[in-house]
Amino acid sequence: MGNKPVNRMLKLKDRPMEAVSSDNFELFEEEVQDIEEGQMLIKVLYLSFDPTQRGWLNDVPSYMPPVQIGEIMRAGAVGQVVESKNKNFSEGDLVQGSFGWQEYVVTDGSSNFMPAQKIPEGIPPTSALSVFGVTGLTAYFGMIDIGKPQEGDTVLVSGAAGATGSVAGQIAKIKGASKIIGIAGGSDKCKWVVEEAGYDHCIDYKNENVGQKITELAPEGLNIYFDNVGGPILESSLACIAQKARVVLCGGISSGYSMKSLPPGPSTLMNLVIQRARMEGFIVIDYAERFPDAIIDLGGWVGEGKIVYREDIAEGLENCPETLENLFKGKNLGKQLLKLANPV
Amino acid sequence: MGNKPVNRMLKLKDRPMEAVSSDNFELFEEEVQDIEEGQMLIKVLYLSFDPTQRGWLNDVPSYMPPVQIGEIMRAGAVGQVVESKNKNFSEGDLVQGSFGWQEYVVTDGSSNFMPAQKIPEGIPPTSALSVFGVTGLTAYFGMIDIGKPQEGDTVLVSGAAGATGSVAGQIAKIKGASKIIGIAGGSDKCKWVVEEAGYDHCIDYKNENVGQKITELAPEGLNIYFDNVGGPILESSLACIAQKARVVLCGGISSGYSMKSLPPGPSTLMNLVIQRARMEGFIVIDYAERFPDAIIDLGGWVGEGKIVYREDIAEGLENCPETLENLFKGKNLGKQLLKLANPV
Repeated sequence: MGNKPVNRMLKLKDRPMEAVSSDNFELFEEEVQDIEEGQMLIKVLYLSFDPTQRGWLNDVPSYMPPVQIGEIMRAGAVGQVVESKNKNFSEGDLVQGSFGWQEYVVTDGSSNFMPAQKIPEGIPPTSALSVFGVTGLTAYFGMIDIGKPQEGDTVLVSGAAGATGSVAGQIAKIKGASKIIGIAGGSDKCKWVVEEAGYDHCIDYKNENVGQKITELAPEGLNIYFDNVGGPILESSLACIAQKARVVLCGGISSGYSMKSLPPGPSTLMNLVIQRARMEGFIVIDYAERFPDAIIDLGGWVGEGKIVYREDIAEGLENCPETLENLFKGKNLGKQLLKLANPV
Repeated sequence: MGNKPVNRMLKLKDRPMEAVSSDNFELFEEEVQDIEEGQMLIKVLYLSFDPTQRGWLNDVPSYMPPVQIGEIMRAGAVGQVVESKNKNFSEGDLVQGSFGWQEYVVTDGSSNFMPAQKIPEGIPPTSALSVFGVTGLTAYFGMIDIGKPQEGDTVLVSGAAGATGSVAGQIAKIKGASKIIGIAGGSDKCKWVVEEAGYDHCIDYKNENVGQKITELAPEGLNIYFDNVGGPILESSLACIAQKARVVLCGGISSGYSMKSLPPGPSTLMNLVIQRARMEGFIVIDYAERFPDAIIDLGGWVGEGKIVYREDIAEGLENCPETLENLFKGKNLGKQLLKLANPV
């Protein structure tokens, strides 16, 4: 290589107590280092934004170690190989991996979170992070393995305009559920959920009484509730479950991610007893061995038009903290990404 | 029969808002009616007291219809047949069934809650309501079917000095769990839980910090938490679950039974996600078909001394409301019964 490019990166400066802001991160620039045997230099094209990243900013034990002060913020990403001394990757390859909030990365591809892998031919790089990425896979394993949709089921999904929620309901329908109800914030999102994602109904939690609407739309009770938000919506939904219902806990955007004292849980919890129902949490990386099969299923459904998805693409490295925070404010519609560069 | 006996009974007068008191019931006396073909007259010997009875006093839909105003309070009981025109039962038979808060009952034996059945030879009548009754069966199906104890598991049981809790932990040990921790109120109860029921440890929630003690006693995390109480103890326990933990919801003595607004749920609920854990409720009557097999198992374990149980026996029909309320005050040690008469 000739002139070394300059890498710009965002490192964690101090931990947010509640909302994430650009004050929590510091921008550094440094010349990209030489690669060694086994390594490659990747130019980062798109960053993925996921609710779970908020949890990594807290200094508490979880399923992954916290991001340390002074460390580059951890993030899933798609990039393109600029130079390679790794026999598995060649210059020009599109790859996904845990590349972090930076414009270039030198890596041997290993990662506990997301080892580098080539994006198969024909898959657009952004969809490797959305419908074929962690968010689509979360919908897949959460709905199929935990929700276990049955023929004729009534299914409720919160965060239904989001990257995971929108796919979760569509999978339930593919698996035979007969009524899919979404919950989203605002009429634009609800319109998209029904008209594009094919949900039967969508409740606008900003303008409607969620508990009352669920009762109206599903007097038979909910066989599955796929929870993306926690909080009052979880509470209302639990009040409406049918016997032997499955409540899929997928993270809880509205609770559990900030460092402030945890909000109370749902007062309706004991309805799990009366309805002999099950509530279960999961972490998608536990299913890593089955990702290839899941991606084949998802790819088939996308190809047949049975799954429709949407991406919400921000730009500019310096906007990363705000873009992450926007997830919790419900500003995104579909998968939240941030573009750093175009592939060559 | 010669002189007709007088039956005394307690009928629901008005619904308790919170604590149950004798003011909510009215005592009636009336001469026992003649029995018809298919019926029998039973003298009630022992009444069973169960947390779920509190729920039947609320005018809200549940897994059983509420007890109506003016109706005799529903209760499981053991009695002795005084006179029979039912071919399945003979004078002198000891029977259990849903006989209610009264001294005599005329019945054909049918009941949605607990159809009349003869108590097998050799089983003491009180144990038909305790270890071989709904409370023991609740421990059996809750622990085995929902908790699914595995070799080496660490198991926590709240209400561990109670009728269900004390048996639940012993079943987990029989099934290979290696550490059984109880939670009970007061040093006398804790002493019994460890010394008699064979638990490895018992936390006195009245005098110890439950969350801190669980962390000390189970730094490896809880594989099973069998919840009998809900509330703050459920909250603390959820904070200490291990990966893939099973949380068995068995009713929640401290929450969900009163008519007042429901208390908040556990703020630690989202730990189910981080630990990929499951929380599940159940109602023991769903397992009715398997009761005979379960009673054979329980009988074997009692016979081998692997299950120790205790009964707490009040007396006098007029003390029924207070005896029910005592369950929620944690005053009982072991299965709460009330004796009305001796068998002849």
